[in-house]
Amino acid sequence: MTERKLNQPLGGNEMPRFGGPATMMRLPVQDSAAGLDACFIGIPLDIGTSNRPGTRLGPRQIRDESRMLRPYNMATGAAPFDHLQVADIGDVPINTFDLKKSVGIIADHYRAVLAHGTIPLTLGGDHTLTWPILRAMKERHGPVALIHVDAHADVSDIMFGEKVAHGCPFRRAWEEGCLINDKVFQIGLRGTGYSPEDFNWGRAKGWTVVQAEACWHRSLAPLMADIRAKIGDAPVYLSYDIDSLDPAFAPGTGTVEPGGLTIWQGLEIVRGCAGLNLVGADLVEVSPPYDPSGNTALVAANLLYEMLCALPGVPQGAPPPR
Amino acid sequence: MTERKLNQPLGGNEMPRFGGPATMMRLPVQDSAAGLDACFIGIPLDIGTSNRPGTRLGPRQIRDESRMLRPYNMATGAAPFDHLQVADIGDVPINTFDLKKSVGIIADHYRAVLAHGTIPLTLGGDHTLTWPILRAMKERHGPVALIHVDAHADVSDIMFGEKVAHGCPFRRAWEEGCLINDKVFQIGLRGTGYSPEDFNWGRAKGWTVVQAEACWHRSLAPLMADIRAKIGDAPVYLSYDIDSLDPAFAPGTGTVEPGGLTIWQGLEIVRGCAGLNLVGADLVEVSPPYDPSGNTALVAANLLYEMLCALPGVPQGAPPPR
Amino acid sequence: MTERKLNQPLGGNEMPRFGGPATMMRLPVQDSAAGLDACFIGIPLDIGTSNRPGTRLGPRQIRDESRMLRPYNMATGAAPFDHLQVADIGDVPINTFDLKKSVGIIADHYRAVLAHGTIPLTLGGDHTLTWPILRAMKERHGPVALIHVDAHADVSDIMFGEKVAHGCPFRRAWEEGCLINDKVFQIGLRGTGYSPEDFNWGRAKGWTVVQAEACWHRSLAPLMADIRAKIGDAPVYLSYDIDSLDPAFAPGTGTVEPGGLTIWQGLEIVRGCAGLNLVGADLVEVSPPYDPSGNTALVAANLLYEMLCALPGVPQGAPPPR
Amino acid sequence: MTERKLNQPLGGNEMPRFGGPATMMRLPVQDSAAGLDACFIGIPLDIGTSNRPGTRLGPRQIRDESRMLRPYNMATGAAPFDHLQVADIGDVPINTFDLKKSVGIIADHYRAVLAHGTIPLTLGGDHTLTWPILRAMKERHGPVALIHVDAHADVSDIMFGEKVAHGCPFRRAWEEGCLINDKVFQIGLRGTGYSPEDFNWGRAKGWTVVQAEACWHRSLAPLMADIRAKIGDAPVYLSYDIDSLDPAFAPGTGTVEPGGLTIWQGLEIVRGCAGLNLVGADLVEVSPPYDPSGNTALVAANLLYEMLCALPGVPQGAPPPR
Amino acid sequence: MTERKLNQPLGGNEMPRFGGPATMMRLPVQDSAAGLDACFIGIPLDIGTSNRPGTRLGPRQIRDESRMLRPYNMATGAAPFDHLQVADIGDVPINTFDLKKSVGIIADHYRAVLAHGTIPLTLGGDHTLTWPILRAMKERHGPVALIHVDAHADVSDIMFGEKVAHGCPFRRAWEEGCLINDKVFQIGLRGTGYSPEDFNWGRAKGWTVVQAEACWHRSLAPLMADIRAKIGDAPVYLSYDIDSLDPAFAPGTGTVEPGGLTIWQGLEIVRGCAGLNLVGADLVEVSPPYDPSGNTALVAANLLYEMLCALPGVPQGAPPPR
Amino acid sequence: MTERKLNQPLGGNEMPRFGGPATMMRLPVQDSAAGLDACFIGIPLDIGTSNRPGTRLGPRQIRDESRMLRPYNMATGAAPFDHLQVADIGDVPINTFDLKKSVGIIADHYRAVLAHGTIPLTLGGDHTLTWPILRAMKERHGPVALIHVDAHADVSDIMFGEKVAHGCPFRRAWEEGCLINDKVFQIGLRGTGYSPEDFNWGRAKGWTVVQAEACWHRSLAPLMADIRAKIGDAPVYLSYDIDSLDPAFAPGTGTVEPGGLTIWQGLEIVRGCAGLNLVGADLVEVSPPYDPSGNTALVAANLLYEMLCALPGVPQGAPPPR
Repeated sequence: MTERKLNQPLGGNEMPRFGGPATMMRLPVQDSAAGLDACFIGIPLDIGTSNRPGTRLGPRQIRDESRMLRPYNMATGAAPFDHLQVADIGDVPINTFDLKKSVGIIADHYRAVLAHGTIPLTLGGDHTLTWPILRAMKERHGPVALIHVDAHADVSDIMFGEKVAHGCPFRRAWEEGCLINDKVFQIGLRGTGYSPEDFNWGRAKGWTVVQAEACWHRSLAPLMADIRAKIGDAPVYLSYDIDSLDPAFAPGTGTVEPGGLTIWQGLEIVRGCAGLNLVGADLVEVSPPYDPSGNTALVAANLLYEMLCALPGVPQGAPPPR
Repeated sequence: MTERKLNQPLGGNEMPRFGGPATMMRLPVQDSAAGLDACFIGIPLDIGTSNRPGTRLGPRQIRDESRMLRPYNMATGAAPFDHLQVADIGDVPINTFDLKKSVGIIADHYRAVLAHGTIPLTLGGDHTLTWPILRAMKERHGPVALIHVDAHADVSDIMFGEKVAHGCPFRRAWEEGCLINDKVFQIGLRGTGYSPEDFNWGRAKGWTVVQAEACWHRSLAPLMADIRAKIGDAPVYLSYDIDSLDPAFAPGTGTVEPGGLTIWQGLEIVRGCAGLNLVGADLVEVSPPYDPSGNTALVAANLLYEMLCALPGVPQGAPPPR
Repeated sequence: MTERKLNQPLGGNEMPRFGGPATMMRLPVQDSAAGLDACFIGIPLDIGTSNRPGTRLGPRQIRDESRMLRPYNMATGAAPFDHLQVADIGDVPINTFDLKKSVGIIADHYRAVLAHGTIPLTLGGDHTLTWPILRAMKERHGPVALIHVDAHADVSDIMFGEKVAHGCPFRRAWEEGCLINDKVFQIGLRGTGYSPEDFNWGRAKGWTVVQAEACWHRSLAPLMADIRAKIGDAPVYLSYDIDSLDPAFAPGTGTVEPGGLTIWQGLEIVRGCAGLNLVGADLVEVSPPYDPSGNTALVAANLLYEMLCALPGVPQGAPPPR
Repeated sequence: MTERKLNQPLGGNEMPRFGGPATMMRLPVQDSAAGLDACFIGIPLDIGTSNRPGTRLGPRQIRDESRMLRPYNMATGAAPFDHLQVADIGDVPINTFDLKKSVGIIADHYRAVLAHGTIPLTLGGDHTLTWPILRAMKERHGPVALIHVDAHADVSDIMFGEKVAHGCPFRRAWEEGCLINDKVFQIGLRGTGYSPEDFNWGRAKGWTVVQAEACWHRSLAPLMADIRAKIGDAPVYLSYDIDSLDPAFAPGTGTVEPGGLTIWQGLEIVRGCAGLNLVGADLVEVSPPYDPSGNTALVAANLLYEMLCALPGVPQGAPPPR
Repeated sequence: MTERKLNQPLGGNEMPRFGGPATMMRLPVQDSAAGLDACFIGIPLDIGTSNRPGTRLGPRQIRDESRMLRPYNMATGAAPFDHLQVADIGDVPINTFDLKKSVGIIADHYRAVLAHGTIPLTLGGDHTLTWPILRAMKERHGPVALIHVDAHADVSDIMFGEKVAHGCPFRRAWEEGCLINDKVFQIGLRGTGYSPEDFNWGRAKGWTVVQAEACWHRSLAPLMADIRAKIGDAPVYLSYDIDSLDPAFAPGTGTVEPGGLTIWQGLEIVRGCAGLNLVGADLVEVSPPYDPSGNTALVAANLLYEMLCALPGVPQGAPPPR
Repeated sequence: MTERKLNQPLGGNEMPRFGGPATMMRLPVQDSAAGLDACFIGIPLDIGTSNRPGTRLGPRQIRDESRMLRPYNMATGAAPFDHLQVADIGDVPINTFDLKKSVGIIADHYRAVLAHGTIPLTLGGDHTLTWPILRAMKERHGPVALIHVDAHADVSDIMFGEKVAHGCPFRRAWEEGCLINDKVFQIGLRGTGYSPEDFNWGRAKGWTVVQAEACWHRSLAPLMADIRAKIGDAPVYLSYDIDSLDPAFAPGTGTVEPGGLTIWQGLEIVRGCAGLNLVGADLVEVSPPYDPSGNTALVAANLLYEMLCALPGVPQGAPPPR
């Protein structure tokens, strides 16, 4: 179809998996998004976190543990590197001493990426970062549908008196008109809060909130079919907080809530996004200091790869025989 | 209803979650149970353990990781601090060099707590501690129904020739007439043993023993409905050994048995106790040295909070919309 | 039935669980397999691994964490030490500087074990080791049926140009005619690969490949019933790679793939082998450096014990009451 | 001498060391500094850090590990609780989302402490916090002498364009006239930098900079004698960054520089402050996520206790026999 | 010289270091001390500890990490396995639920060992264990000289009202007349206490107490020469608490005191015992849960090997060239 | 002086230290050594190790932890990036399944590097790798002087029957005539062995062996002055095994020997190489799985930077004032 030479992850037969560049999937690096269909970007931010720190190191460890990933998706038959030009474009130089300035830096950075027509897949970093990304998305695409997978609603008006924190991004994005309210889906919410309003605020705006308890003991494939039908061909942003997963599956994060999604459900959600008009996605809140085995970062790397496999332009293969 | 000022957990908007007092849920501390409807108590005991040690540090780490807990239960709608006076009354000064003396110290301590009409929620510590608590319970309430969640039956007659150890508490409690035999439920038992008698001893007394395998791949809500029907309004004690959970969900414990309950089932069990006449509960066998991320203690803190939400006097809210 | 005195694991009432010999289940040690019905053998190999190292320490840590295991299986009623003579026969002295020579050392070692009519249960060590074991099995029993539980197919022709590596053992075994092709079952395969061929190679040979996704959200008891029917009374080898389990259940391994089997499924698989004509089994790829709590090794020790319980000659007990 | 009842650390014969309140040395807590000669205060700050995070959890872990400390100093003969009224007054409620606001909150908090005439001993937290403390010190005492023990000079004008960060506090304090320039001593500086100016900036102001290399292989008792002579009776502030110690002695910190001070030298420095007119002290940069054994926090707790022992009003005992 | 075949550690050219039996130095095991000149014994005790637990696992981890040890001492030229018959005789079956009974069990066990004329080298376990060993020593040898290396004096009369605890063994031994008072040497004592009496109690009995501060910045070879001269040919027991070392060198222990001995000093002490009439030695207080790298146990294993090298009957080699 | 633009490490004011490329010192990457005065190369090898594995991950973690390094050496005044063109040229694609083939791959790789006239600084990897490097060095420079810092002599003829292993590289290099025998210096050797021959083999060849004990309690600056005088202007290779350091300073390694060098001595050795005609250097045996804090890799990164500072062509600055 295309004549251009597509980047490939460095293979295990050319360099042992534990060697080679510590880039996402050992892909080539480039400075800008020019010429890319999709890109991986890191945002090493953790000054928006309210409990445990450490997400500043998330992008580094996700990249490190992504070294095992091979190009072909054995479950879905997707072969993204046969169809998309992809690279790792490095990190956003956030200001680690000033959270509010970092919001501006991130928004500018994503404006530049989107100007190239590239779909950004973001390695977080704390959830504050989704607000400036959604701002840039709106400027490019208009309001977007949102699939938000998380233990928390992240719609607080303020935290400790501040408007900018990892519990507020979707409130801010809503205020700025970034979201299509009847196409917002929050999945996996649970735990303790201050009042029912914590989750009902979004519902009052027309959002669909699927609490974790509604997900227990079942497949989420039907839910995703329903979501795909409701979103149709609107542009969609996928924001995946690793703490949506139960801590058994992702111990290395900062605001842990027991009783979460399973990894099987997490994969069903991301794979269930195939067919949507995804315009961007992020994987946030991986905190390496709380992940001694590295497996949380490894799970995150896999989910980011699955996001790539679900992008427009990547054909889904035949399902494997049963 | 009440005019008294009810204690509240210190909120995240007054003090960052990682600051403030390292008490349970950052609640106020008081020396005795006077004036309290319910209290959290620590028992830093591990000299009754037979394999890995470390539960002596359980109360400290559970309190530490409880700092994330907010007052409202998003799943059940319970708001315990709107209805109950609750505080952290510190630790029982057990004798760490003499297990048998510690049993007496614990029993005395709980007699004093129960004399105030307070419901104790205990942060363990190894499971030996439940025996003296049940002794005090019986003196106050007569024999009690028991919901015992565990990987092990803990009904050994002796361990290494001793009558006092973490494998014997329910045998001792039974001998002292603390239990209503047809209202004893043991859930989650599994693993290896010395003979079928290990689990059948209780069955022969009229106890209901639900082995872990009977719980696999299903919700435990129906089981809890059945248990509530069978217990009726008898006083009930809930003893929750963290090793009832599969080690995927609670790695930090001492006598690990694979194939256990899920956290979703654990939450169903504790939430399923709402409506019962709970007179006390404990969460035992958290061993911080085997819990590098702190998540086992965090799970334990959540389960203790859920116990509080299930106490008599705490209205259950409307279920969240699906 | 037999007059010989059968070895028993050292009990917790004779020596605290954290003391005593660091042998498998604290069983007696002997130098050869003479006189044994079954034996535990360690193969401290990790130079066949392609990502994280550490499986060389697997046998040591599995033995260490096996100290909790008691002789009776509470779930299945099996009492293997009442029926079989079992011992720990130590480790194979592999050449840690030359993988190809180690293959020969292992094959020779197992020839000697099998010459005694003993069923070997192997503590790995990386998966390379299964090839030489299967070679010895074939020499003794002819081609065997295979139940292979794993995240990976391990049928690569070459890795980094080499024929001997932990991704190739079943390709090599197939080439040598060790397998009965219509009685080969691969369970749990998933993740990323180079092409559909990675899993279809075996299918083309007549093997049954059950990808992990086909196992999600269900019991595997029906699958095992089906497998038992298909295998009949052919000699069967069981090769269990700990990475078949989702990393939530077994974090300590080297080539981690999220979305795997549950521990409940893992137990269903091994227990589902009872009734088959098992001629050997292995548990491979435990990597202690990635297992800070020791629980992966503990899970492995339990699975090895369950393998022993499933061997021919061990009666299965009555199922526990529900 | 005094009639007031002096607070004592909770003793190990009243409550096991692993139980009791998780306050500094298990001392009583009070809300303000009223009536105290000295107090321990936590500042759970880490948003001023430039490399590894985690110091937000420093105060909690230092308090936890301080549980071993007994009241009497076996080396110096100091018995601080016989002479001073001391309590733990909890944490400063810093704004974890805005570093600049936190500076103001800290300064206000210390103004209130100093207004009671209390000497504050601070548990950090990142080094940014020393600037607002010195500001409050100057308002109370005028410019102060400074003993600054650190791997870094922390006199950067800006970091990433910002004036407020953990590399700038002494530059800011100098700008505000908080320091007596010929009585400033920086000990332990080393590692890599941008130019000689990194350490010479202070020298140009009249400060004494003792690089780590000048400390190798020797006792620092002579240095401290010299410093005491130069400071005389001026008010002195002691700022002790745990990274002054070589990482062998204090691994749990964020900006590690090999080749540092020994713990013996660290103790010589703090003990060498006895006799000075200490008006406050801090111990900063303990990062628990990088301290799996807890020993860095334990070292920090000991150094804070030694600071207490060196305060004015605490007699030094007879040296132990040799 | 002798015709008997002496046991040798299993060599690295016969079995990789990470394989083979997990015995001390991979030596042969035997059930009793019969025929042995010296033996290694484990005492998996931690119920005498007052702060962190975990020493129950000390013997297992010391044995595990001893696998690196080769037979010849490169520093001293000692070749103990050329001169002594040595084996690992396993663990003492202490009663982990009753400390006082364990004291009796230990004493009986050592009476049996000493009856064979064997010198026991003990792998601890908490320091409580030295009291019953000294009791058995006295019965065999009469009162003994003592070299006690520790951070603590361990001469408390009672702890929490108890006479048996890890802070009391030398008080108890003194009461029983086990010690030659003018030949008792305590080295490395430091930290905090309740009063000067903590260290002066022994001094008042005629003991020599060398506080850690007296050891800083110097070689201890001269001290050991002095001690050898004072002890002469009296029978000597060496009790080495790993917490005598600064935690930089031995992090994995329970009652940590900064400012301790260096490993070089520790080696000088043990090597400095060569030439004495050593009748036994122990290495206590290794706590594996606080030792994630395993290096504390490895240091302990080395010190135990050095004790073996210093036993009577082992010639010291020529010093290496400088 | 030079017109070419010299590469600079990415600064902390351009990108936070925890972001940016995970290359050595965040330097630019290039594929070959063309145009470079010096380069960093990784060799992710661990199949030559005989005890703990993990050095395959050494290069990755050293690069990760090198992110803190700034360009100027505060101790020596060296500013290497003002004088040398330096880059990170990535990893050698060793064959992780065949150690002997890896030796050939490494030698070829270094021939290519040396053909560019570039000085290689190698991030290991196990010590086997030094043999092929020395082979390439000899081909380029003729026999070289050697400064070998290590706990072990690494002159074994065979290990487990093999000629290629991490205990043999200097024996092999000597056999091939790579070394100038009277200019070989081994520093830090210690521990246990098989016979005095282990260290005397080199002495018999004319090598200078400085055992660790000869280094205790003193500065090594005089030793280095002596070595510089003896080597003169011969080409010199520096091979630095991280296990030369006592494990207190570098816990994350595989063949640990207590009683080693201090980090201050380590820095004295490397800084003491300034003025020599260094033609290459390596830092080997960092094993990240045994280094939970990352500090061993950080120490290694600093030592590699110090090696760069000591290269010919880098002026040494004025010593800092004392």
